Amino acid sequence: MSSKNYTLKIDCSDAIGLVYEITNLLSIKRVNIIKNDEFVDNDNSHFYMRTEFSGTINEGSLIEDLKNILPKDSNVFLTSQANKNIVVLVTKEHHCLSDLLIRNHFKELNANILAVIGNHEKLGGLTKRFDIPYHFVNHEGKTRENHEKEVEEIIESYSPDYLVLAKYMRILTPEFSAKYANKIINIHHSFLPAFIGANPYKQAYERGVKMIGATAHFVNEKLDEGPIISQDITHVTHAENAKSLSKKGKEIERMVLAKALKLVFEDKTFVKENKTVIFD
Amino acid sequence: MSSKNYTLKIDCSDAIGLVYEITNLLSIKRVNIIKNDEFVDNDNSHFYMRTEFSGTINEGSLIEDLKNILPKDSNVFLTSQANKNIVVLVTKEHHCLSDLLIRNHFKELNANILAVIGNHEKLGGLTKRFDIPYHFVNHEGKTRENHEKEVEEIIESYSPDYLVLAKYMRILTPEFSAKYANKIINIHHSFLPAFIGANPYKQAYERGVKMIGATAHFVNEKLDEGPIISQDITHVTHAENAKSLSKKGKEIERMVLAKALKLVFEDKTFVKENKTVIFD
Amino acid sequence: MSSKNYTLKIDCSDAIGLVYEITNLLSIKRVNIIKNDEFVDNDNSHFYMRTEFSGTINEGSLIEDLKNILPKDSNVFLTSQANKNIVVLVTKEHHCLSDLLIRNHFKELNANILAVIGNHEKLGGLTKRFDIPYHFVNHEGKTRENHEKEVEEIIESYSPDYLVLAKYMRILTPEFSAKYANKIINIHHSFLPAFIGANPYKQAYERGVKMIGATAHFVNEKLDEGPIISQDITHVTHAENAKSLSKKGKEIERMVLAKALKLVFEDKTFVKENKTVIFD
Amino acid sequence: MSSKNYTLKIDCSDAIGLVYEITNLLSIKRVNIIKNDEFVDNDNSHFYMRTEFSGTINEGSLIEDLKNILPKDSNVFLTSQANKNIVVLVTKEHHCLSDLLIRNHFKELNANILAVIGNHEKLGGLTKRFDIPYHFVNHEGKTRENHEKEVEEIIESYSPDYLVLAKYMRILTPEFSAKYANKIINIHHSFLPAFIGANPYKQAYERGVKMIGATAHFVNEKLDEGPIISQDITHVTHAENAKSLSKKGKEIERMVLAKALKLVFEDKTFVKENKTVIFD
Repeated sequence: MSSKNYTLKIDCSDAIGLVYEITNLLSIKRVNIIKNDEFVDNDNSHFYMRTEFSGTINEGSLIEDLKNILPKDSNVFLTSQANKNIVVLVTKEHHCLSDLLIRNHFKELNANILAVIGNHEKLGGLTKRFDIPYHFVNHEGKTRENHEKEVEEIIESYSPDYLVLAKYMRILTPEFSAKYANKIINIHHSFLPAFIGANPYKQAYERGVKMIGATAHFVNEKLDEGPIISQDITHVTHAENAKSLSKKGKEIERMVLAKALKLVFEDKTFVKENKTVIFD
Repeated sequence: MSSKNYTLKIDCSDAIGLVYEITNLLSIKRVNIIKNDEFVDNDNSHFYMRTEFSGTINEGSLIEDLKNILPKDSNVFLTSQANKNIVVLVTKEHHCLSDLLIRNHFKELNANILAVIGNHEKLGGLTKRFDIPYHFVNHEGKTRENHEKEVEEIIESYSPDYLVLAKYMRILTPEFSAKYANKIINIHHSFLPAFIGANPYKQAYERGVKMIGATAHFVNEKLDEGPIISQDITHVTHAENAKSLSKKGKEIERMVLAKALKLVFEDKTFVKENKTVIFD
Repeated sequence: MSSKNYTLKIDCSDAIGLVYEITNLLSIKRVNIIKNDEFVDNDNSHFYMRTEFSGTINEGSLIEDLKNILPKDSNVFLTSQANKNIVVLVTKEHHCLSDLLIRNHFKELNANILAVIGNHEKLGGLTKRFDIPYHFVNHEGKTRENHEKEVEEIIESYSPDYLVLAKYMRILTPEFSAKYANKIINIHHSFLPAFIGANPYKQAYERGVKMIGATAHFVNEKLDEGPIISQDITHVTHAENAKSLSKKGKEIERMVLAKALKLVFEDKTFVKENKTVIFD
Repeated sequence: MSSKNYTLKIDCSDAIGLVYEITNLLSIKRVNIIKNDEFVDNDNSHFYMRTEFSGTINEGSLIEDLKNILPKDSNVFLTSQANKNIVVLVTKEHHCLSDLLIRNHFKELNANILAVIGNHEKLGGLTKRFDIPYHFVNHEGKTRENHEKEVEEIIESYSPDYLVLAKYMRILTPEFSAKYANKIINIHHSFLPAFIGANPYKQAYERGVKMIGATAHFVNEKLDEGPIISQDITHVTHAENAKSLSKKGKEIERMVLAKALKLVFEDKTFVKENKTVIFD
C-alpha cells in the first residue's frame, strides 16, 4: 500500500469531545491532516466534520474504528477518488453545457463527463466536438414515465456518481428524484424561493425587480425545494425586458452552477434534510 | 427673477420627435441643460424623460407650453425645491432611523426630517439627541383605524412630501396606503418577492438560502407588492441562524433604504403601475 | 434603399442646444430613434451622444449634415454593421479564448472571430474544434520586432475591426500599440492600477489582499495605462496561495473581458485620452 | 469560580497532532467547545487555531499547560472579555465616527468607545450628543512629534485595547506606529495597494477606473502597508468626478471599517508579519 490523499466526511449527533476522539484516532493511524473543518448545528445538536489527510491506511478498518467511537446515527464517508463520474442532462440552451465541456476538456472540473443526454438534438453537435457521447432521447409522443425510463437506462449504463441538470427543462417524476436523491444537481433560473415555476424571467420582468438571480440545488422528491448549494444575483434596471433578463440570467446561471459543482465534486457539501452545510 | 436649478420629469405615450420637441422648447426658453435622460418602454409604448437645467423661467408657463406639445396623457413635474420634507415612522429597530438622523444632521439626505412617529417609546431618546420631535403613538388598546387616525393627524400637521417607513412594523390600512400612494417608501426585510409576510429571516433560515436581501419600495394599496426602487443582498452560510441572519440583514436594509431615498429625493424615480423607471 | 438599424456616436466640444440640433436633424431625416444617451463631461466641457435609430438614409449625407451643425472638433461615427470582425491573440491560457470561441460559435459575441494567433502551439487544438484558423507564430529565437512583424502580417491579411488580447503574454512594441491604438482590447490580471507588471497574483498573495480583480482596457502606447473599459473583483481569504488566486482570478478575467467586449462590439464605448465614456 | 465564555487563539509552527493535543487538553479541562477553527499556512508551515469554549477554568494554568504541549514559538491568547476598550481618532469627516457612535450607543460594537480625539473641533458636537468625551488637540503651530505626544498622553490616560483611526488624516510617526503596532485599525480610502498616498479619489478619477474601494488594515511601522483586514469596492462610471467619487467612497469606507472592527473586536484576526489570518 502506498500513501494517498483522502477526504473524510463525518456527520452525527453532537457529543462532547468528538473532535478530540476523531483526531486522536487519526493520530493513532499516523495520517497527516492537511485541512480540517468542523461545524456544530446547535439548533439541531448535529456535528459535521470534513478532513483532508494523506497516509497509508486500511480504508475499511478506519471507517469501522470511526463508527465505533461515534454516535450511532453517524454518517462516515471516505474517498480517495480524485474525480467524480457524471452524466449531464440538457434541453436546448447551451451556456451551462458549454462551460462544463470546456472545463472537462481542460481537466478543470474535478469530474469526468461520461455522456450528455438531451431531449432535443440541438446540443449534439457541440458535445461531439469535445468527443463526448451525446444521447438524443426524444420525448415527443411518449409518456413522462416512458421517456424517463429511456433516459434512466442510458444513465445506468454509465454508473455515474452524479447527474447534472444543465438547463434540462423536463419535470422529473418523484420516483426518479427519489432514486437519485441528492445525487442530482440542478441549476434553477431564479433566486429561489422567488419565482418558482415557469418563466421566472417573465415573472421577474412583470414584478419589476431590480435584481435577478440563479440557484444551484440538489434535487430530491421536492424538486425546486431541494437543498440549496449556491446562489448569486446580478443587478438589473427598468431598461430590461423578459428576453434581455433571460440573457443576463444565463451568465449568472453558468457561474452559479460552476461554483456549486466545484463544491460538490470536491466533497465539500453535506446534505441534512432540506439544507446544506458547506465547507468552502 | 433669478436663475435657479430645476428638475423636470415628463412621462407620456411615446410619439415621434418627443426629444426634439421638448429640447426645442427648452432651447427657446433659453435654459441651460445640465443633464438629460430618456427611456422608451417599448412594450407599453411609453416615454420617460428627466432633465436637469438652470435658467430664469416662468414655471407655470413652461409647464403649460410643455402640455401643449405633449400627448394628452402626459405627466409633467417641475421642481426647484432642493430638499424634500419628510416624516419618518418607526417601531423598535433603530438601524434605519439612526442612519437617517445622521445623514439629516449633516445635510446629506436631500431631505429634512420634520418629525419621527413611533408606535413604541424606544426610539424617542435617540431622535431627541438630534433635536427632532418624536411622537409616541401607542397602538395598544386601539383599533388599527383609530391608531392610524392619530398617526395621520400628526403627519398632516407637518405636510410632508414623503413618508419613510424605517422599519415601521404596523400593517397600513388600504385607505392610508391609497391616500399616500407612491409617497410612502418602505424597507422590506427580504429580497421581494421571496419571503413575503412575517419573519422573513426565520423563513430564510428554514429554507436554507445562501443569500439574504432587502427591498425598498413605494407603498400603494398592494403594500409589499408596490413598485420596487432598490434591492440588494449579502451572502450567508449554513453557520447562520435566524437571529444572526436578522443582524446581517439590518446592514443590507440600511444600505438599500439609503440608496432608495437618495433616488427618490433627487427626483430620479418614475412610478408606472407596479414598476419604477429610475435614472441613476 | 431599405430601412436599416444604425448606431450613431458623436463627441465634440460642448455647446448650447446640441441635443436639440442633432435630434432636429434626425427628425428632418425622418428616422425613428430607438435609444438615445448623452453625457456632458463638465470638467472638460465635452459632449458625448450615442443614438440607435432605424431608417432609410444616405449615410454620407447624414454625416456631412451633422458635421455642418456640430463644433469643428466633432467625431461622428455611423454604422449599420451588426458584427465586428476580430482577430484573437493568445499564449497558453485557454479560459478567455474558450469563452470567446463558445460565444462566437453560438453567435452571441456581436463579432466574428476570423482567426486566432498564438505564440505557443497549445491552443491550436481547441481553436480548430470550432473550425477557426489558428496561426502559431513562435517567438523563440526572434527579436521582439521580427516576431511582431510576422504577427502583424497575419493580422493584416484579415483586416479586422478589433484585436482581442485573450491572455496574450507578450509585451507589444510602441509602434504596434500606436498603429492599433484603441482597436486592441486587453484583459489584465489585476485590478489596475494595483499590481502592474509581472505575476500580479504572486504580488497579491504577498501583499495579503482580501480581493483580487481583473481589468479590461484599450491598449495604446501606454500599454497597461490604456483606457479602462470594465473591472471587477472577487473576495479572497488567507487560505489562498498564489496558485489558487490565479485560478480564482481566471474566472474574473473571463467575465470582465466578456463584458468589455460586449460594450465595445455594440459601439457603446467612447475613448477620450486615457478614459472611456460608456453608455451601458 | 463560575463558568465563563472564552476565546482562545493559538498560533505556532506547524507540527503533527496539534489539533489532537489541544483538544485533548481542553477535554481534560472539561470545557465545552462551542466553535473551533484551524488553518495551516503550508508555505510557512505555521498553524493557527481559534476556539470558543465555555467552562470553569484557571486561566493561568490553562495557558501554562498549552505552552507546555505547543512548539516553543507559540503565541497563546486567552480572553473572557466581552468588549474591547477603544479610543477613536478623527479629523473632519464624520461618516465613520457617526457609524461607530451609533453602534456604540446601541451596544452593537463589541467595544466601548472611551473617548474621541480630533485634530479639528468639528466632530466634538456630534460626539458629545452621545455623551462621549471629545478631546480637541490642535496640530497647528506644533511639530508632528509634539502634537502626537499630546495625543498619546490622552490615549494613555484611557488605557485602550485598540485605537481606531476613523478618517484621521495625520501621518503617524514610526515611533507611535511601532508602539501601538497591530493595535491600531485604520480605514484607507482606496483599494490598496492602488492609489497609495494623497487624494486617492482624485487619482482614481484621473485614471478613469470603473471601481473604487476602501481598505481597513492594522497599522504598523509601514503605515499603509500594514496587514489588511477587510476590503470592498463599488462600481462607478464615467459620470463621476473626484468629488462624487469621494462621496460614494465614504459609503464603502464606513462599511469596510465596520466589518473589520467586528472581526478584530471578536478576536477573529491573527497578524503574521504583513498579513492577517481571519476566521469569519
